[in-house]
Amino acid sequence: MSNVNNKKRTTVHIYGQHYTIIGAEGPAHVHKVASIVDDKMREIRQQSNSLDAKQLAVLTAVNIVDDYLKLQERVKQLENKKED
Amino acid sequence: MSNVNNKKRTTVHIYGQHYTIIGAEGPAHVHKVASIVDDKMREIRQQSNSLDAKQLAVLTAVNIVDDYLKLQERVKQLENKKED
Repeated sequence: MSNVNNKKRTTVHIYGQHYTIIGAEGPAHVHKVASIVDDKMREIRQQSNSLDAKQLAVLTAVNIVDDYLKLQERVKQLENKKED
Repeated sequence: MSNVNNKKRTTVHIYGQHYTIIGAEGPAHVHKVASIVDDKMREIRQQSNSLDAKQLAVLTAVNIVDDYLKLQERVKQLENKKED
């Protein structure tokens, strides 16, 4: 998904601001993704009330990359098992 | 990984600002995660120069959640194959 140079445009609302997401994915998928990001930002804000929106967004990205790397480990394990 | 209420503290530098990440993970992992977020923010900035840091961070999170959902699909496929 990218915010430029692609086909479908979907406008989503994340943490008080609108974003137009341009990419191959349809609106349903983009709204689901946006809602996950919005939820995570609000979850992190509850843990640290003093953070501004940029810091919340960065820490949200940090949390999601962490989850991503863990899921990537799971994929590696599953792929190795397949070869057994 | 969380930014409060856990044990190890690692300070990272993401897009011009320091963040102290507190969690179960050691510094090497946290630095790796931070560097992925920083790279993604710079990559998205190259596509849309007019975005501010908060918008860049939100769109970074959006991109990573999208990647995460795709990887989750891959895990489902692999888990289904295992049962064959």
